[in-house]
Amino acid sequence: MGKKLIVQKFGGSSVANVERIQNVAKRVVSYRKKKHDLVVVVSALGDTTDELIELAAKINQHPAEREMDMLLSTGEQISVALLAMAIHKLGFEAISFTGAQVGIITDSSHTRARIIKINADKIKEAIKNGKIVIVAGFQGVTLNQDITTLGRGGSDLTAVALAKELKADECEIYTDVKGIYTTDPRIEPNAKKIDEITYDEMLEMASLGAQVMQGRSIEVAKKFDVPIHVRSSFEKDTGTMIIKEVKKMEEVVVSAITLNRGESKITICDVPDHPGVAAKIFKELAGNGVSVDMIVQNVGHLRQTDISFTVNKTASPKTLKITKKVAKKIGAGQVLEDADIARVSIVGVGMKSHPGVAAKMFEVLAINKINIEMISTSDISISCIIQKRFAETAVKSLHDKFGLGK
Amino acid sequence: MGKKLIVQKFGGSSVANVERIQNVAKRVVSYRKKKHDLVVVVSALGDTTDELIELAAKINQHPAEREMDMLLSTGEQISVALLAMAIHKLGFEAISFTGAQVGIITDSSHTRARIIKINADKIKEAIKNGKIVIVAGFQGVTLNQDITTLGRGGSDLTAVALAKELKADECEIYTDVKGIYTTDPRIEPNAKKIDEITYDEMLEMASLGAQVMQGRSIEVAKKFDVPIHVRSSFEKDTGTMIIKEVKKMEEVVVSAITLNRGESKITICDVPDHPGVAAKIFKELAGNGVSVDMIVQNVGHLRQTDISFTVNKTASPKTLKITKKVAKKIGAGQVLEDADIARVSIVGVGMKSHPGVAAKMFEVLAINKINIEMISTSDISISCIIQKRFAETAVKSLHDKFGLGK
Repeated sequence: MGKKLIVQKFGGSSVANVERIQNVAKRVVSYRKKKHDLVVVVSALGDTTDELIELAAKINQHPAEREMDMLLSTGEQISVALLAMAIHKLGFEAISFTGAQVGIITDSSHTRARIIKINADKIKEAIKNGKIVIVAGFQGVTLNQDITTLGRGGSDLTAVALAKELKADECEIYTDVKGIYTTDPRIEPNAKKIDEITYDEMLEMASLGAQVMQGRSIEVAKKFDVPIHVRSSFEKDTGTMIIKEVKKMEEVVVSAITLNRGESKITICDVPDHPGVAAKIFKELAGNGVSVDMIVQNVGHLRQTDISFTVNKTASPKTLKITKKVAKKIGAGQVLEDADIARVSIVGVGMKSHPGVAAKMFEVLAINKINIEMISTSDISISCIIQKRFAETAVKSLHDKFGLGK
Repeated sequence: MGKKLIVQKFGGSSVANVERIQNVAKRVVSYRKKKHDLVVVVSALGDTTDELIELAAKINQHPAEREMDMLLSTGEQISVALLAMAIHKLGFEAISFTGAQVGIITDSSHTRARIIKINADKIKEAIKNGKIVIVAGFQGVTLNQDITTLGRGGSDLTAVALAKELKADECEIYTDVKGIYTTDPRIEPNAKKIDEITYDEMLEMASLGAQVMQGRSIEVAKKFDVPIHVRSSFEKDTGTMIIKEVKKMEEVVVSAITLNRGESKITICDVPDHPGVAAKIFKELAGNGVSVDMIVQNVGHLRQTDISFTVNKTASPKTLKITKKVAKKIGAGQVLEDADIARVSIVGVGMKSHPGVAAKMFEVLAINKINIEMISTSDISISCIIQKRFAETAVKSLHDKFGLGK
């Protein structure tokens, strides 16, 4: 194995306290001893970001986003300085940088900025000088020198973008789990760590509620073909490789089962069944910043129909309020909420070429006497809304029937 | 009173918690309502800096100074963001900046950097756009974009330097006392707030242990003739003006009495009395970073002499070790430490033109049966080392006899 350039990203839980920072330092140094060049991206210590958000809320419940970024970006700045000190303590050279210092240039959409370009000269120079480079994740700077943050999953994005820019050989995302699993091991103890998964499957899983990586950084990795290695910061074992195409002797049809219990189902009854009515409802919701997930419209009878859709539970009070107003305006009936639902999905690039996968899923649920309330499909996933009390049974039986267990 | 440009600096205790930050915001806004342009310099919240130093020490007892600056500069960055939010909450426009963002360019002496120049364009532009400008104190940036800090009293220095650069009409230093006093009011309840004091007197007081402002920022204020107003952040009353020359009907001979109980006296006995011996001792101490204060050499007898000097108590273990080694080398006798001493000083530009001030000081101490162990004088101060148990009596009687009481 020759000398490589490796980008490593450590999340907040990996640097939550002094001992963990020291462990990250040891891990980084163990790679350095193998002569690899290293760029280490770090998140804020443990709950620092949440604490800063709380502090700001005490002063101003609607803080200016520019000032919020000024505040939150300190979290990662603290992490990089401490990690550099910990690496120095082990006798190795390291230098820390803020997002601004390494030229992570973003647009000015504070709190959710997009990376425009990276001027990586400073990093390249530091690497050339034999230093382990430590970069604050989650943050950048506008051309006008205002500090920005990249939003949720921002540190992953920093790592992927740097890996792309530096043409890194590897991009390792260290987290508190061993990798990507066939399903949530807390629900199904038989869940297996997946060795390789495609960008598309991972994107699908992220959008279906898997928490390990945000969709945004996977999209960038896919776009620039940056291979990602998701692995545990507490163990040595390899984790899951997220790559373009998985080549196996025997094709796996379904790669994983996901579960999302964070949504509510909203139903508008007796909607007048003529063109443009659905548009009115969802335009109004979108205009108010409500992101709607699955939508199902029943077959109409008597020129009336029911429309159901799901939204994140946190958005449901706002959604109900808006929907009731619109329902009245368009002459629809009652608006009902069902918070006791779950979305169970099967994901796999293999299902594209295998007919009958959906039928098999519905059959498994039927055998378990689980009623399907809504269905939605994509090229590589099928999702069913069911009652929440059946969620774990559904996950376990699907996991078993699609042969994902150990 | 027309529209002014005012620089206001609030120390860590003035922004120690949410309520105090809100109070600072109200105070700043009250000036804004009078149409003044404002540049507000803020320190880190309460004990944040000390907490960060402790955290770093747990990871590396000798942290790299560059990384220390990276770490510590986050403290002020948090303060400026929160103060901006608090001002927004009151309905006024404000924008926060780090030292780097407003172009406070320093040399690369990390943890004690010196300001080289300030590119104040960003501040001027923000002021022109009607904004209250909030600047992180204590920090700057090198031409190479490395973050630096200015050392103790750094936020005062930021304020004074900005006041100079912006040609501000006033520079207000807000603190937790009402101003500069004729002596420490905790010792002498009769101590009076001084209305006006010269830069030179203030410099002398700072070097003699008065804690309100560090000498460094006063030096810069003196150099560029920036008038400083030291006042309380908790009250409305005016405080003390530090200016070039105080013009009064009747000249005050002595302006203040200072007390420093933080020093130890080190005595080297039986030092061979020939040229170059003292040089050897103090060169060795300086080379080891020990800053020696007063030095007294007794008149020699039998070709031997005693040399006494004072050092800060925190440096005394190191000093003793070095001194004992040197004493042995040069053939001197015992090295003794007396930690129970105090330095009491009288300060005043008036004493230059008034003979007999020293005599009066010695007489006051003699009447109170206080033995003087060492004496040192400058143009505008006289200091005596006495036993610590007499310190308060000395301060009170000098304060009274030089007519400084209310």
